[in-house]
Amino acid sequence: MTNELFVKMTLDRWNASLRSCDSILARLSDNELHQAVAPGKNRGIYLLGHLIAVHDDMIVLLDLGEKIYPELFEPCLKMPDRADAKIPDADVLRNAWIHQCAALDILFNKFTAEQWFEKHSAVTAEDFLNEPHRNKLNIVITRTSHLQYHLGQLRLLK
Amino acid sequence: MTNELFVKMTLDRWNASLRSCDSILARLSDNELHQAVAPGKNRGIYLLGHLIAVHDDMIVLLDLGEKIYPELFEPCLKMPDRADAKIPDADVLRNAWIHQCAALDILFNKFTAEQWFEKHSAVTAEDFLNEPHRNKLNIVITRTSHLQYHLGQLRLLK
Repeated sequence: MTNELFVKMTLDRWNASLRSCDSILARLSDNELHQAVAPGKNRGIYLLGHLIAVHDDMIVLLDLGEKIYPELFEPCLKMPDRADAKIPDADVLRNAWIHQCAALDILFNKFTAEQWFEKHSAVTAEDFLNEPHRNKLNIVITRTSHLQYHLGQLRLLK
Repeated sequence: MTNELFVKMTLDRWNASLRSCDSILARLSDNELHQAVAPGKNRGIYLLGHLIAVHDDMIVLLDLGEKIYPELFEPCLKMPDRADAKIPDADVLRNAWIHQCAALDILFNKFTAEQWFEKHSAVTAEDFLNEPHRNKLNIVITRTSHLQYHLGQLRLLK
Protein backbone atom coordinates (compact mmCIF):
# COMPACT_ATOMS: atom_id res chain seq x y z
CA MET A 1 0.00 0.00 0.00
CA THR A 2 1.35 3.43 -0.84
CA ASN A 3 1.81 6.44 1.37
CA GLU A 4 -0.15 8.40 -1.24
CA LEU A 5 -3.27 6.33 -0.59
CA PHE A 6 -3.25 6.88 3.15
CA VAL A 7 -2.57 10.60 2.73
CA LYS A 8 -5.52 10.76 0.33
CA MET A 9 -7.81 8.92 2.79
CA THR A 10 -6.84 11.33 5.57
CA LEU A 11 -7.06 14.53 3.53
CA ASP A 12 -10.35 13.44 1.92
CA ARG A 13 -11.89 13.14 5.39
CA TRP A 14 -10.41 16.50 6.45
CA ASN A 15 -11.67 18.27 3.32
CA ALA A 16 -15.12 16.66 3.53
CA SER A 17 -15.34 17.90 7.13
CA LEU A 18 -14.40 21.44 6.08
CA ARG A 19 -17.11 21.29 3.38
CA SER A 20 -19.64 20.13 6.00
CA CYS A 21 -18.76 23.19 8.04
CA ASP A 22 -19.19 25.39 4.94
CA SER A 23 -22.68 24.05 4.38
CA ILE A 24 -23.69 24.40 8.04
CA LEU A 25 -22.44 28.01 8.00
CA ALA A 26 -24.28 28.74 4.75
CA ARG A 27 -27.56 27.74 6.36
CA LEU A 28 -27.08 29.86 9.50
CA SER A 29 -27.87 33.55 9.70
CA ASP A 30 -25.48 35.83 11.61
CA ASN A 31 -28.17 36.09 14.25
CA GLU A 32 -28.32 32.30 14.61
CA LEU A 33 -24.53 32.18 14.88
CA HIS A 34 -24.77 34.47 17.88
CA GLN A 35 -27.00 31.99 19.72
CA ALA A 36 -25.73 29.36 22.16
CA VAL A 37 -25.78 25.81 20.71
CA ALA A 38 -27.73 24.74 23.81
CA PRO A 39 -28.83 26.72 26.88
CA GLY A 40 -25.76 27.90 28.81
CA LYS A 41 -23.32 26.42 26.27
CA ASN A 42 -20.92 28.00 23.76
CA ARG A 43 -22.25 30.38 21.13
CA GLY A 44 -21.86 29.54 17.45
CA ILE A 45 -19.68 32.61 16.99
CA TYR A 46 -17.28 31.36 19.67
CA LEU A 47 -17.09 27.89 18.12
CA LEU A 48 -16.36 29.33 14.67
CA GLY A 49 -13.56 31.47 16.11
CA HIS A 50 -12.37 28.42 18.06
CA LEU A 51 -12.12 26.28 14.92
CA ILE A 52 -10.17 29.00 13.11
CA ALA A 53 -7.81 29.38 16.10
CA VAL A 54 -7.21 25.61 16.29
CA HIS A 55 -6.65 25.33 12.54
CA ASP A 56 -4.27 28.30 12.70
CA ASP A 57 -2.22 26.38 15.22
CA MET A 58 -1.90 23.53 12.71
CA ILE A 59 0.19 25.83 10.50
CA VAL A 60 2.73 26.08 13.32
CA LEU A 61 2.57 22.39 14.25
CA LEU A 62 3.12 21.41 10.63
CA ASP A 63 6.07 23.81 10.25
CA LEU A 64 4.28 25.65 7.48
CA GLY A 65 4.73 29.19 8.77
CA GLU A 66 3.00 31.63 11.09
CA LYS A 67 -0.60 31.83 12.26
CA ILE A 68 -2.93 33.91 10.09
CA TYR A 69 -5.28 34.97 12.91
CA PRO A 70 -3.22 35.00 16.13
CA GLU A 71 -5.69 37.48 17.65
CA LEU A 72 -8.25 34.67 17.97
CA PHE A 73 -6.10 32.61 20.36
CA GLU A 74 -6.98 34.59 23.47
CA PRO A 75 -10.77 35.00 23.08
CA CYS A 76 -11.56 31.72 21.27
CA LEU A 77 -9.06 29.15 22.50
CA LYS A 78 -7.36 30.20 25.72
CA MET A 79 -10.54 31.61 27.24
CA PRO A 80 -14.00 30.04 27.49
CA ASP A 81 -16.90 31.79 25.76
CA ARG A 82 -17.87 35.01 27.52
CA ALA A 83 -20.27 37.69 26.43
CA ASP A 84 -17.64 40.42 26.96
CA ALA A 85 -14.87 38.69 24.99
CA LYS A 86 -13.56 40.52 21.94
CA ILE A 87 -14.73 38.03 19.33
CA PRO A 88 -14.89 39.49 15.80
CA ASP A 89 -18.28 39.89 14.11
CA ALA A 90 -19.84 36.98 12.27
CA ASP A 91 -19.04 38.36 8.80
CA VAL A 92 -15.38 38.83 9.72
CA LEU A 93 -15.15 35.24 10.99
CA ARG A 94 -16.99 33.85 7.98
CA ASN A 95 -14.45 35.52 5.69
CA ALA A 96 -11.57 34.35 7.88
CA TRP A 97 -12.88 30.76 7.68
CA ILE A 98 -13.04 30.85 3.87
CA HIS A 99 -9.64 32.49 3.55
CA GLN A 100 -8.03 30.08 6.01
CA CYS A 101 -9.48 26.98 4.30
CA ALA A 102 -8.02 28.15 0.99
CA ALA A 103 -4.66 29.00 2.60
CA LEU A 104 -4.41 25.61 4.34
CA ASP A 105 -5.25 23.85 1.11
CA ILE A 106 -2.36 25.57 -0.65
CA LEU A 107 0.00 24.87 2.25
CA PHE A 108 -1.02 21.21 2.58
CA ASN A 109 -0.43 20.64 -1.12
CA LYS A 110 3.22 21.57 -0.63
CA PHE A 111 3.90 18.31 1.19
CA THR A 112 4.85 15.15 -0.60
CA ALA A 113 3.29 11.96 0.79
CA GLU A 114 6.61 11.17 2.49
CA GLN A 115 6.75 14.58 4.18
CA TRP A 116 3.36 13.97 5.82
CA PHE A 117 5.03 11.15 7.75
CA GLU A 118 7.76 13.38 9.15
CA LYS A 119 7.57 14.57 12.74
CA HIS A 120 5.43 17.56 13.67
CA SER A 121 6.94 20.53 15.53
CA ALA A 122 5.66 19.57 19.01
CA VAL A 123 7.55 16.26 19.21
CA THR A 124 11.32 15.96 19.69
CA ALA A 125 13.46 14.05 17.18
CA GLU A 126 14.35 11.66 20.00
CA ASP A 127 10.74 10.87 20.94
CA PHE A 128 9.81 10.55 17.28
CA LEU A 129 12.21 7.64 16.86
CA ASN A 130 10.04 5.57 19.19
CA GLU A 131 6.72 7.19 18.32
CA PRO A 132 6.62 7.50 14.52
CA HIS A 133 2.83 7.91 14.62
CA ARG A 134 3.39 11.43 15.99
CA ASN A 135 3.79 12.69 12.45
CA LYS A 136 2.30 15.59 10.52
CA LEU A 137 -0.54 13.52 9.10
CA ASN A 138 -1.65 12.61 12.60
CA ILE A 139 -2.20 16.31 13.31
CA VAL A 140 -4.75 16.32 10.47
CA ILE A 141 -6.38 13.15 11.86
CA THR A 142 -6.83 14.59 15.36
CA ARG A 143 -7.99 18.00 14.10
CA THR A 144 -10.57 16.31 11.86
CA SER A 145 -11.99 14.67 15.00
CA HIS A 146 -12.00 18.03 16.76
CA LEU A 147 -13.77 19.69 13.84
CA GLN A 148 -16.44 16.98 13.65
CA TYR A 149 -17.06 17.26 17.40
CA HIS A 150 -17.88 20.94 17.07
CA LEU A 151 -19.81 20.49 13.79
CA GLY A 152 -22.21 18.28 15.74
CA GLN A 153 -22.77 21.28 18.01
CA LEU A 154 -22.98 23.99 15.33
CA ARG A 155 -25.54 21.85 13.52
CA LEU A 156 -27.91 22.30 16.48
CA LEU A 157 -28.24 26.02 15.76
CA LYS A 158 -30.63 25.36 12.85
CA MET B 1 6.23 3.85 5.77
CA THR B 2 4.49 0.68 6.84
CA ASN B 3 0.85 -0.33 6.64
CA GLU B 4 1.06 -1.11 10.35
CA LEU B 5 1.70 2.54 11.12
CA PHE B 6 -1.37 3.74 9.12
CA VAL B 7 -3.53 1.16 10.82
CA LYS B 8 -2.25 2.16 14.26
CA MET B 9 -2.89 5.87 13.59
CA THR B 10 -6.45 5.13 12.48
CA LEU B 11 -7.32 2.66 15.24
CA ASP B 12 -5.74 4.88 17.91
CA ARG B 13 -8.12 7.68 16.91
CA TRP B 14 -11.09 5.32 16.81
CA ASN B 15 -10.28 3.85 20.22
CA ALA B 16 -9.63 7.25 21.78
CA SER B 17 -13.04 8.37 20.49
CA LEU B 18 -14.73 5.31 22.03
CA ARG B 19 -13.02 6.10 25.34
CA SER B 20 -14.26 9.71 25.12
CA CYS B 21 -17.77 8.33 24.75
CA ASP B 22 -17.22 6.06 27.77
CA SER B 23 -16.22 9.01 29.89
CA ILE B 24 -19.11 11.19 28.73
CA LEU B 25 -21.54 8.34 29.49
CA ALA B 26 -19.98 7.78 32.93
CA ARG B 27 -20.70 11.39 33.86
CA LEU B 28 -24.35 11.32 32.71
CA SER B 29 -27.20 9.97 34.82
CA ASP B 30 -29.91 7.89 33.12
CA ASN B 31 -32.19 10.86 33.63
CA GLU B 32 -29.77 13.18 31.83
CA LEU B 33 -29.49 10.66 28.99
CA HIS B 34 -33.23 10.94 28.50
CA GLN B 35 -32.97 14.70 27.91
CA ALA B 36 -32.68 16.32 24.48
CA VAL B 37 -29.15 17.62 23.73
CA ALA B 38 -30.75 20.99 22.88
CA PRO B 39 -34.41 22.08 22.82
CA GLY B 40 -36.28 20.13 20.15
CA LYS B 41 -33.22 18.05 19.18
CA ASN B 42 -32.35 14.35 19.63
CA ARG B 43 -32.35 12.83 23.09
CA GLY B 44 -29.14 11.33 24.51
CA ILE B 45 -30.78 7.91 24.61
CA TYR B 46 -31.53 8.10 20.89
CA LEU B 47 -27.96 9.15 20.07
CA LEU B 48 -26.50 6.31 22.13
CA GLY B 49 -28.74 3.80 20.33
CA HIS B 50 -27.83 5.48 17.03
CA LEU B 51 -24.10 5.05 17.65
CA ILE B 52 -24.58 1.38 18.52
CA ALA B 53 -26.68 0.84 15.39
CA VAL B 54 -24.08 2.53 13.17
CA HIS B 55 -21.20 0.59 14.74
CA ASP B 56 -23.20 -2.63 14.34
CA ASP B 57 -23.37 -1.92 10.64
CA MET B 58 -19.57 -1.73 10.55
CA ILE B 59 -19.47 -5.44 11.36
CA VAL B 60 -21.33 -6.12 8.12
CA LEU B 61 -19.37 -3.58 6.06
CA LEU B 62 -16.10 -5.08 7.27
CA ASP B 63 -17.26 -8.63 6.49
CA LEU B 64 -16.82 -9.63 10.12
CA GLY B 65 -20.19 -11.27 10.65
CA GLU B 66 -23.71 -10.32 11.67
CA LYS B 67 -25.05 -7.34 13.61
CA ILE B 68 -25.25 -7.79 17.39
CA TYR B 69 -28.19 -5.42 17.93
CA PRO B 70 -30.26 -5.46 14.70
CA GLU B 71 -33.33 -4.35 16.70
CA LEU B 72 -31.77 -0.86 17.02
CA PHE B 73 -31.76 -0.21 13.27
CA GLU B 74 -35.44 0.75 13.03
CA PRO B 75 -35.84 3.05 16.08
CA CYS B 76 -32.32 4.56 16.16
CA LEU B 77 -31.11 4.74 12.58
CA LYS B 78 -33.92 4.41 10.06
CA MET B 79 -36.31 6.60 12.07
CA PRO B 80 -35.72 10.01 13.63
CA ASP B 81 -36.05 10.36 17.40
CA ARG B 82 -39.66 10.12 18.55
CA ALA B 83 -41.03 9.89 22.05
CA ASP B 84 -43.07 6.78 21.17
CA ALA B 85 -40.21 4.85 19.55
CA LYS B 86 -39.25 1.55 21.18
CA ILE B 87 -35.78 2.54 22.30
CA PRO B 88 -34.36 0.28 25.04
CA ASP B 89 -33.82 1.70 28.54
CA ALA B 90 -30.61 3.57 29.34
CA ASP B 91 -29.12 0.68 31.35
CA VAL B 92 -29.73 -1.75 28.48
CA LEU B 93 -28.03 0.59 25.99
CA ARG B 94 -25.13 1.30 28.33
CA ASN B 95 -24.47 -2.45 28.60
CA ALA B 96 -24.86 -2.88 24.85
CA TRP B 97 -22.32 -0.10 24.26
CA ILE B 98 -19.74 -1.73 26.54
CA HIS B 99 -20.34 -5.18 25.09
CA GLN B 100 -20.18 -3.93 21.50
CA CYS B 101 -16.93 -1.98 22.07
CA ALA B 102 -15.32 -5.15 23.44
CA ALA B 103 -16.71 -7.28 20.59
CA LEU B 104 -15.48 -4.84 17.91
CA ASP B 105 -12.06 -4.74 19.51
CA ILE B 106 -11.77 -8.52 19.26
CA LEU B 107 -13.05 -8.50 15.67
CA PHE B 108 -10.79 -5.66 14.56
CA ASN B 109 -7.76 -7.44 15.96
CA LYS B 110 -8.38 -10.32 13.56
CA PHE B 111 -7.27 -8.23 10.59
CA THR B 112 -3.68 -8.00 9.50
CA ALA B 113 -2.53 -4.55 8.41
CA GLU B 114 -2.82 -5.69 4.79
CA GLN B 115 -6.41 -6.86 5.26
CA TRP B 116 -7.45 -3.39 6.45
CA PHE B 117 -6.63 -2.16 2.94
CA GLU B 118 -8.90 -4.68 1.24
CA LYS B 119 -12.28 -3.58 -0.10
CA HIS B 120 -15.26 -3.27 2.22
CA SER B 121 -18.50 -5.10 1.47
CA ALA B 122 -20.40 -2.12 -0.03
CA VAL B 123 -17.99 -1.61 -2.94
CA THR B 124 -17.73 -3.90 -5.96
CA ALA B 125 -14.42 -5.52 -6.90
CA GLU B 126 -14.60 -3.60 -10.18
CA ASP B 127 -15.07 -0.19 -8.55
CA PHE B 128 -12.39 -0.99 -6.00
CA LEU B 129 -9.79 -1.30 -8.76
CA ASN B 130 -10.19 2.41 -9.50
CA GLU B 131 -11.05 3.51 -5.97
CA PRO B 132 -8.62 1.70 -3.63
CA HIS B 133 -9.35 4.22 -0.88
CA ARG B 134 -12.74 2.52 -0.42
CA ASN B 135 -11.12 -0.03 1.85
CA LYS B 136 -11.97 -1.38 5.29
CA LEU B 137 -9.78 1.12 7.10
CA ASN B 138 -11.71 3.96 5.50
CA ILE B 139 -14.88 2.66 7.17
CA VAL B 140 -13.17 3.20 10.52
CA ILE B 141 -12.05 6.69 9.48
CA THR B 142 -15.55 7.81 8.47
CA ARG B 143 -17.21 6.23 11.52
CA THR B 144 -14.73 7.96 13.80
CA SER B 145 -15.88 11.27 12.30
CA HIS B 146 -19.50 10.26 12.84
CA LEU B 147 -18.83 9.29 16.45
CA GLN B 148 -17.03 12.57 17.19
CA TYR B 149 -19.91 14.56 15.65
CA HIS B 150 -22.38 13.00 18.08
CA LEU B 151 -19.96 13.14 21.04
CA GLY B 152 -19.98 16.90 20.65
CA GLN B 153 -23.75 16.71 21.10
CA LEU B 154 -23.83 14.19 23.96
CA ARG B 155 -21.30 16.34 25.80
CA LEU B 156 -23.92 19.12 25.99
CA LEU B 157 -26.10 17.02 28.31
CA LYS B 158 -23.84 17.78 31.30
